[in-house]
Amino acid sequence: MGARIEAAASGWDVSPVHLLRPIPGIFSLADLDTSATPGFVGSKSDAVRLMQDRGKRLHTLQEKLYADAVAGNGRAVLLVLQGMDAAGKGGIIRHVLGTVNPEGVDHAPFGVPSSEERQHHFLWRVHKALPRLGHIGVFDRSHYEDVLVARVRRLVPEEVWQGRYCEINEFEDQVADQGTVIVKVAMFISLDEQRQRLLDRLQDPHKYWKFSPRDVDDRLLWPAYRDAYQALLDKTSTEVAPWYVVPSDHKWYSRITVMELLIAALESMNLSWPSASYDIDEEIARLERS
Amino acid sequence: MGARIEAAASGWDVSPVHLLRPIPGIFSLADLDTSATPGFVGSKSDAVRLMQDRGKRLHTLQEKLYADAVAGNGRAVLLVLQGMDAAGKGGIIRHVLGTVNPEGVDHAPFGVPSSEERQHHFLWRVHKALPRLGHIGVFDRSHYEDVLVARVRRLVPEEVWQGRYCEINEFEDQVADQGTVIVKVAMFISLDEQRQRLLDRLQDPHKYWKFSPRDVDDRLLWPAYRDAYQALLDKTSTEVAPWYVVPSDHKWYSRITVMELLIAALESMNLSWPSASYDIDEEIARLERS
Repeated sequence: MGARIEAAASGWDVSPVHLLRPIPGIFSLADLDTSATPGFVGSKSDAVRLMQDRGKRLHTLQEKLYADAVAGNGRAVLLVLQGMDAAGKGGIIRHVLGTVNPEGVDHAPFGVPSSEERQHHFLWRVHKALPRLGHIGVFDRSHYEDVLVARVRRLVPEEVWQGRYCEINEFEDQVADQGTVIVKVAMFISLDEQRQRLLDRLQDPHKYWKFSPRDVDDRLLWPAYRDAYQALLDKTSTEVAPWYVVPSDHKWYSRITVMELLIAALESMNLSWPSASYDIDEEIARLERS
Repeated sequence: MGARIEAAASGWDVSPVHLLRPIPGIFSLADLDTSATPGFVGSKSDAVRLMQDRGKRLHTLQEKLYADAVAGNGRAVLLVLQGMDAAGKGGIIRHVLGTVNPEGVDHAPFGVPSSEERQHHFLWRVHKALPRLGHIGVFDRSHYEDVLVARVRRLVPEEVWQGRYCEINEFEDQVADQGTVIVKVAMFISLDEQRQRLLDRLQDPHKYWKFSPRDVDDRLLWPAYRDAYQALLDKTSTEVAPWYVVPSDHKWYSRITVMELLIAALESMNLSWPSASYDIDEEIARLERS
């Protein structure tokens, strides 16, 4: 009985949609508590239980989005995932997007640019990776690498990366104008939590392939990366393409949070099941005769 | 106790890999019992239970395939799905591929060719849709439409579609040579079962969008489609790219069957977890210092 009441009372106290937007001038990444679970009342097991229900909701909403596209409306959702190494981007894809029909997800990983990609404008490969209508696109890393690694490792001159914040905002404005709802998620973990997660990879032969010595190099550059993230959050969190800063030491929290952010994005689209574009009674009669 | 013994004894009597290949000159689609469940001993609930276990196996195998690609081996799996309208292709994608990490699946639907696609060779769009290395690609319909609808509806002259069987075999030979294991699945249901499934779509406002009057038109052309399927199975089931004919009146049977075919394909690749490409002890020491 006690357990039932507790379960019923668990869940979101305040929606993460309202809690996790960084306010320019106020939000400070250096002060972020990566072990916090803002807005969620309940335990890990409450969250795991809630994931199942909400996963069904997300599945249905994506199907509606797809049906909407079949009916001729050109809409899509784009989830941009950024974060430190081992922050849990892969887990989001597996556990949150894994609840959606695989037909409905467009997954685009952004690795080190190829030599062809480097010869083009940095948004060239991004345009090509935008989700198809009716789909939820996931950028696993994204064009934001061009103001993160490019800035920290000085891959381009400062005037180039400085100009990119504006270019990104204009690009995302166009994408949103064309009917794609953009949700940007930045995942952060503490340096201790990151050390532990990387150590796990080095101690499990099934995970060796997930580790790269570059992950440790990047750890050593964390202060510079943190500054680059702070600038990015200050400059590119817009009304049409807001950032959400997700404390990610607790994997269950980051997963249930991104689940809710996606559900909220889809619900904001007021999707409805398309009506029949044919005469239903006539088709039933034809079908029964056939 | 009785139930436990029954459950333990349920499963595959003979693997579908050995049972479902159509033997040219012997296999006759007109004689296929679409309600059969060849090789499976057990009930629907046994199959649903087995799906969960086997889904985990498929998930792990795909992760190994991905790790193998990261380590520099260029391999992939391609599942080609063909079948009558409402035969359950979508359910295969949702329930079988849905057990795999969404990062690991490349879904390619083949609809009516665009005007650009029609100006190219029929395999042009197929080349572009081949799975990325380390991925399981799913063709939802495929290049086989070019010897099915193209033949039945006379979209091209006979000498054109007649030449395509050979072109397809050569194309698939090349794809297999490059390290992609091909599994081709043809799903068939009875005309009564199809009528019922289409009727369901016409009677549920959430499903109106899945129905097209063309589905009834195609039913009326079934004898011609059956001949086209028979020719395709006779001419394009090769050693490197075999067809499996899956009776699909029972959705649970078609799903557990395709699950097993994919697992067998991945197991035939003898995948192993890649060894570390760096000095593990050195990296642990660097990580602990960082």
